[in-house]
Amino acid sequence: MPVTHSQAILNGERLALTRALTQVENNTAEGLEILEALFPHTGNAHLIGVTGAPGTGKSTLVNQLALTYRQSTDSSVPPRVAIVAVDPTSPFSGGALLGDRVRMQDLAGDPGIFIRSMASRGSLGGLAAATAGLVQVFDAAGFEIVIIETVGAGQAEVNIARLAHSTIVTEAPGLGDEIQTIKAGILEIADILVVNKSDKPGAENTLRGLRNMLTLAHPDGNHVNHHGQLMELDTDMDQTENGWIPYVLPTVATTGEGIPDLVNSLSEHYKYLKSSGIWQVREEKRLKNQLETLLGTALRSRWEKRISPDIYQAALAQVMKRELSPWRAVEKLILGAGL
Amino acid sequence: MPVTHSQAILNGERLALTRALTQVENNTAEGLEILEALFPHTGNAHLIGVTGAPGTGKSTLVNQLALTYRQSTDSSVPPRVAIVAVDPTSPFSGGALLGDRVRMQDLAGDPGIFIRSMASRGSLGGLAAATAGLVQVFDAAGFEIVIIETVGAGQAEVNIARLAHSTIVTEAPGLGDEIQTIKAGILEIADILVVNKSDKPGAENTLRGLRNMLTLAHPDGNHVNHHGQLMELDTDMDQTENGWIPYVLPTVATTGEGIPDLVNSLSEHYKYLKSSGIWQVREEKRLKNQLETLLGTALRSRWEKRISPDIYQAALAQVMKRELSPWRAVEKLILGAGL
Repeated sequence: MPVTHSQAILNGERLALTRALTQVENNTAEGLEILEALFPHTGNAHLIGVTGAPGTGKSTLVNQLALTYRQSTDSSVPPRVAIVAVDPTSPFSGGALLGDRVRMQDLAGDPGIFIRSMASRGSLGGLAAATAGLVQVFDAAGFEIVIIETVGAGQAEVNIARLAHSTIVTEAPGLGDEIQTIKAGILEIADILVVNKSDKPGAENTLRGLRNMLTLAHPDGNHVNHHGQLMELDTDMDQTENGWIPYVLPTVATTGEGIPDLVNSLSEHYKYLKSSGIWQVREEKRLKNQLETLLGTALRSRWEKRISPDIYQAALAQVMKRELSPWRAVEKLILGAGL
Repeated sequence: MPVTHSQAILNGERLALTRALTQVENNTAEGLEILEALFPHTGNAHLIGVTGAPGTGKSTLVNQLALTYRQSTDSSVPPRVAIVAVDPTSPFSGGALLGDRVRMQDLAGDPGIFIRSMASRGSLGGLAAATAGLVQVFDAAGFEIVIIETVGAGQAEVNIARLAHSTIVTEAPGLGDEIQTIKAGILEIADILVVNKSDKPGAENTLRGLRNMLTLAHPDGNHVNHHGQLMELDTDMDQTENGWIPYVLPTVATTGEGIPDLVNSLSEHYKYLKSSGIWQVREEKRLKNQLETLLGTALRSRWEKRISPDIYQAALAQVMKRELSPWRAVEKLILGAGL
C-alpha cells in the first residue's frame, strides 16, 4: 500500500499528495513510511523561504509570486509551485491565523499550484520537523518551486528559513523607525529584501535605510546599487560564507508590480548557489539539522519508554521542594532508566 | 573550597559572587558544584523579565527601575537588585551588543545593585540555561529583585521571559503601525505593558492602541481603564491561566517619570501571584522547563560518548547522497551506540 501510494505521489496524483501531507503533518507511522519511500527522490526543488513582520503583505506577495512563476514564458512548461504556509507566532495559544484564510481566487483552479497551511504545533522543534517533512513530499512529487511562508520574524522563523535555499525577507514602509525593528539575525538570513507596499509614503526612506544597512554589513563590498547587485565570490571566504549581497527590491504585491523582478532575482540567486557550490553546502546543513532534530527526539522517547512516569514525577516533586537539584535529578533519572 | 565559596556567596560577598557568575556562565564543573550548593537557598527573589523591540529604551528603563527600588522608602531596608542583561538577537554572528555597554553612572557606586551582561551563546538552549543559572546564583545570594533584560522580542525572548514571575513588555510611540509589530506571543507574555518615551508625539495613540488590543484579548473582562486594573480571578479558569489583565503604563525612562507607578504595579502583581497561587504554578513550570532542558542535553552527551564520530560522519555522508534516509540513519546511530 505505501509503495503504491508513494508511486502515486511521484506520479503527481493530487489525491495521493493530499493524503500524504496529512499523514506526514500528523507524524503517523504511515507518514514516516511515505517519507522513507520518497526520500531518494528529493533534492531537486528550489526551496524559497518568505519571512518578515506581520502587516508587510507576505501572503499577497507569495500568491503573486506563484502566479508569476506559472505565467512565465521563459520555459515551455512553467514550473509547478507548492506553498507551505506556517504560523509559529503564538507559542501559547496555538491559533491558526493562516489555517482558514481564503487564498486568492486566481490560484484556485490551477493544478500546477498546491497550497498547504500549517498551524502552530506544541513545540517549535515539532513545527520545524513537520515543515521539513511537507517540503520533502512536495520536492519528491516534482514541484520545481516550494515556497515556505512564515507569519512572524522571530527565532522560529529563522529556524524555518534554514530549510530554504533562498530567503526573502519582507518589509513595508510606514513602520517608522522600522530599521530598528529588523533584527540582526533576520537581516543575516535575507538573500533578497523586499520592500512591499512600495507605492505608500516613506517607501524611498525604507529602501534607502535597508541599502545603507547592507553597506554597513558589507563594508568590503562595493556599494549596493539601486537594484542590488551580484558580487564576485570573495576567494578568501570559506564556502559556507555568503558572497552574495542581498538584493533590495520594491514591490506592490496587490498589483503585481515588481514581482517579475523578484522572480528574476530568485533565478539569479539559484544560479549563484549552484555555480558557487553553496547549494550543496546548504543542502548538507539542512539534512544535518534534520538528522540532529530527529536524533534528539528519538533519544528522548527511548528514555521515556525506559522510565516509569512515577519516578519522573517524584523527582520533579523533590526539585519543587528544593530537596533535590535539577542537576542531580537528571543524573538520577538517567541512571533510573538504566542508561 | 566550593563549600566555602558558596558560603561566601550566601554571605553576599561581592568577589565570591563575581567568580561564581563566571563559572556558572561558562558551565564549568565548579559552576555546577556552586549551583548544586546554592539550589536549596533559591526561590525567594521576585524575578522580573523586561523585553520589547530595540529602540524602546529598555536599558534606561531597567536602570531607572533599579534606582527607584533602591530609593524606595516603603521598607526600612531597600531591596537589593540584580540585573541580568541578555542578548540573543543574532543566532549567527554572536555579537555582544550589551557586553561593552556602559551602564548609568548612578548605579555604579551602589553595593546593593549588581549588573551582569551576557552575549549570545551558540545555541538558544545554552543561553536560556546559562541565564537560569545566573538568576539562581543571584536569588541564593539574597537579591530580592532580579531583573532579566533581553534585547529583542522573538522566540528566544519568550523562552527567557518564561524564567520570570512578572514580565514587562516595552513599546515606544512613533513605531507607526506598531500594533502590528507586537506579535501575539509577546503580548500574551506581558503582565505589564510600558509605553516608554511617552513624552514623544503619538504616545496617546500607542497607549490607546494597546488598550484596545487588550480589550479585544479579554472580551469577557471589564474594559481596562486608564491605569489598567486588577481583575478578580475568574473561577472557571484553571490556575495556570492568567486572570490578570495587563497594566498599560506610560513612562519617560530618561527623566524617571512613571517609574514609581511601574514599581507599584510590579508590587501589586507580586501580591496577585502570591495570593492566587499562580506564583507556585510559575515556579513549577520554570523548574520543569529547566529539568527538561538539562535532560535533553544529558541524553545527547551520553549518546555522543558511546558512538565514534566516524560512524556519525559516515551516516551523515550516506544521508547527503540520499542512500540513507534521516529516519533510518537515526535508528542506525542509536543502535550503534548500544542504546
